[in-house]
Amino acid sequence: MAVPEYPDYPPDLNEQQQEYLLTNLKDWSIAHGLAVRTPENPSGPQAITAPVTLFPSLFPRVCFEQARSVAQAYNELYSAIASDEEWLGSVVEELTEIDDFMAELWKVHLAVKREGYVQPLNLGLFRSDYMVHIDPSDAIMPLSVKQVEFNTIASSFGGLSSQVSAMHNHLLRKLAYPDSTSLIKDSSLQQSSSAHDLAKGLSAAHRAYGASGTGHPTCVLFLVQANERNVFDQKHVELALIESHGVEVFRLTFDRVLENTAIDNNRKLIYTPPHAPHQHFEVSLVYFRAGYAPTEYDGVKAWEARHHIERSAAIKCPSVLLQLAGTKKVQQVLATPHSPHLKHFLSDPAQSEQVLKTFAPIYPLDQSEAGQEARKLATSSETAAKYVLKPQREGGGNNVYRKNIPGFLKGLPESHWPAHILMEMIEPPAQQNVIYRNGELQKGGVICELGVYGVCLWKNGSNNAERAVKENFEAGYLLRTKGDSSEEGGVAAGFGCVDSVCLVDV
Amino acid sequence: MAVPEYPDYPPDLNEQQQEYLLTNLKDWSIAHGLAVRTPENPSGPQAITAPVTLFPSLFPRVCFEQARSVAQAYNELYSAIASDEEWLGSVVEELTEIDDFMAELWKVHLAVKREGYVQPLNLGLFRSDYMVHIDPSDAIMPLSVKQVEFNTIASSFGGLSSQVSAMHNHLLRKLAYPDSTSLIKDSSLQQSSSAHDLAKGLSAAHRAYGASGTGHPTCVLFLVQANERNVFDQKHVELALIESHGVEVFRLTFDRVLENTAIDNNRKLIYTPPHAPHQHFEVSLVYFRAGYAPTEYDGVKAWEARHHIERSAAIKCPSVLLQLAGTKKVQQVLATPHSPHLKHFLSDPAQSEQVLKTFAPIYPLDQSEAGQEARKLATSSETAAKYVLKPQREGGGNNVYRKNIPGFLKGLPESHWPAHILMEMIEPPAQQNVIYRNGELQKGGVICELGVYGVCLWKNGSNNAERAVKENFEAGYLLRTKGDSSEEGGVAAGFGCVDSVCLVDV
Repeated sequence: MAVPEYPDYPPDLNEQQQEYLLTNLKDWSIAHGLAVRTPENPSGPQAITAPVTLFPSLFPRVCFEQARSVAQAYNELYSAIASDEEWLGSVVEELTEIDDFMAELWKVHLAVKREGYVQPLNLGLFRSDYMVHIDPSDAIMPLSVKQVEFNTIASSFGGLSSQVSAMHNHLLRKLAYPDSTSLIKDSSLQQSSSAHDLAKGLSAAHRAYGASGTGHPTCVLFLVQANERNVFDQKHVELALIESHGVEVFRLTFDRVLENTAIDNNRKLIYTPPHAPHQHFEVSLVYFRAGYAPTEYDGVKAWEARHHIERSAAIKCPSVLLQLAGTKKVQQVLATPHSPHLKHFLSDPAQSEQVLKTFAPIYPLDQSEAGQEARKLATSSETAAKYVLKPQREGGGNNVYRKNIPGFLKGLPESHWPAHILMEMIEPPAQQNVIYRNGELQKGGVICELGVYGVCLWKNGSNNAERAVKENFEAGYLLRTKGDSSEEGGVAAGFGCVDSVCLVDV
Repeated sequence: MAVPEYPDYPPDLNEQQQEYLLTNLKDWSIAHGLAVRTPENPSGPQAITAPVTLFPSLFPRVCFEQARSVAQAYNELYSAIASDEEWLGSVVEELTEIDDFMAELWKVHLAVKREGYVQPLNLGLFRSDYMVHIDPSDAIMPLSVKQVEFNTIASSFGGLSSQVSAMHNHLLRKLAYPDSTSLIKDSSLQQSSSAHDLAKGLSAAHRAYGASGTGHPTCVLFLVQANERNVFDQKHVELALIESHGVEVFRLTFDRVLENTAIDNNRKLIYTPPHAPHQHFEVSLVYFRAGYAPTEYDGVKAWEARHHIERSAAIKCPSVLLQLAGTKKVQQVLATPHSPHLKHFLSDPAQSEQVLKTFAPIYPLDQSEAGQEARKLATSSETAAKYVLKPQREGGGNNVYRKNIPGFLKGLPESHWPAHILMEMIEPPAQQNVIYRNGELQKGGVICELGVYGVCLWKNGSNNAERAVKENFEAGYLLRTKGDSSEEGGVAAGFGCVDSVCLVDV
């Protein structure tokens, strides 16, 4: 089976066509808050159209369906991992000597464990990121999705993703795509339900928390970074939570946790809004859109704040254990060829088989047998060309690609090598698109990353077998697209843009 | 009955309260397109929160209900006036010698009349503007609304008005208004349905136009100004029309009418989008958001364009006659004390009585008896202090107030005086608010103007009695607020801002 190519996509636009498309794009995006704040004024009244593609990028329908079909299995898998403290501890403890951040997170967990957790409910708003991988040697399945990473904390762009898919649909509706483009049609566009579905997940956790135990009204806290430029992404989820579910929501910057919240005798988390110091709220759920990156923990206070939240009775999205479950080390342990762990957590053979198909081979850089093999692959520039070296922690921005790997490792003490994993590069199909960013157009080759959101709400028991899953659903998708000259994703960081899928049958 | 005052409204905000309210205001407004383009970049991807009040302004419930209750009567009245060409002609012809703009509009009508109109359907999207008038000497009705003007063309802010009332409601929901403000509550806020209702009106006209006679698909044309900064106001109406009613809509700048439209043998108006020159659309309806101000008619081409549209089979919103019906001269003729005209058009005595109550006394400056009296009032600085002098045409910006009137008239040839009307000043209640504009806060005394939108779709017969009204409904409201130091309204011009009502029972 040959892999089809679409050299005529997207169509070239003449001056009038481009002006028409762009005018509609600019107007629609601002009318619907598909926007980001400007770097010059991150807290001002100004905003600008978020970086977007002019056209929805082509995506094989079979791959889109494959990625969505494993969402519930992934929810199950990561909720099981986060609930198996012993297993998780054995994986994480290997890294604590070389990764201060993970070591500190683990300490937070241990401290709360000593005191005793008081909240058995956990909420995960996940995003599993994939790329389409072409393997021409595979006659049956030459196109499949392979997982890039699995996010268990601060999975972003669920708000803007709903908007960009609606915008591409609007542009089709407005006849902004030239007739020559028979690929873009109602049946190939997919509206992302992410803003709505993530809000539904937050609402489910809020309801599961139950009635206030303090007499104060309950609320959800969005824990955020100061001067967040990507605030409208979060805002669409927050507004859906307020407007569709009637939940009280406050935004709190991470550096104000200790100032504005207190823990009472029953470890209820009490929030006192600075603007209304005589009003108090019992926090049902802390939703982390901050606190995921090592750079945010710049002192003892930040770790105190994290510990403060973790020991409280509020549901955490995520808990420390769930954040740790999202480390790339866990991904590597699962995806190491012939690993027994996946089957341990997903007892349904059909489910584990499905999930396994989405793994690209991942190797540790430790002293194990697989690790020894990986070291050979990574230190030769010839074999390294098929790999990417990734740090074990969240946040992106520090991947080392292909021929740069041997030199990078040479500059790093061998004792630090296990803080990274080696992953076979995914080889995505070539395609073109036009990115609109800060008022400028860039046309060229692009690479797309599909994220599928998942919501999982569960209750821990005294052991993993007693874990009770209360909600488990797929929650929409994100397509992030970047120029293929850059090798890092992340729209907010200015590298990529939000996009939606135009499904093609191959 | 004393007129109540609210010296403690709006409440003072401390630093935290102000920051909280403003943050929520800025985030909500951009997330919902309550925005305008920036002057530096009117066609770029940038936008900024539209000028808004922090608090909904107080408005007597009785006055709000009074204004809404006459909306249908006003629809009836102005559709009747626009359909009575003879009467309208007699009024307008008085002015054609001194007002070139009206003279040219009338010529357009006469030219089409000679050829014969081919479209009997008319659509009016009106906005009747009022201020609360205090008359302490009136024991029964010390507070009532008095009409400022009646707009029959390009009635703006229907889009943003829906958004600002939703935003004030959101701020209440988010506890951004201090507890001390018992006035702001669910039962006092009023959501404006204007964006939805105006779209419903446009859709009704589009449907009434019927099936295409040319085989081309039908569409609605929004006739707009180039570099419109207030584009999102229009966009919310357009998007409601597209999304709720499935109507094809194109925006066309006034200067491109002759280039991009043609009239066929049956006088169908055919639009050819510049971005798709092989596609053609039969225009069901031309919605004027341009072409209302004399400055837009800067040459023969512009008048040709207006004539071109007028003679076409498309429904016009408004027709030339309906635009002329909105002249202040007509308002003056109706509101001149003891005028017989109102009853002529509104045969239902209850209706005409209701409408009459909303008139402030208006005098012509002509040679009639009322005109002679007006000239005396206007040329003495003592009596002029209770009046405003207004030009007869649309657009605002040229009113002369109170003691400035005698000097202004002295500088004007007497033959030009009849181009203006003299109107008793409406004396609104004093109140305070805080306006947020371009990132800056201005607190102080404000004056509010309430606009009530109305939709009227009717079919002309061979005479006024055969006129058949197909749709007649009230269509939401606008509250425009300006600092009381300025004496002109108009948010887009940078003088005022959009607001919503907080009803008070007095």
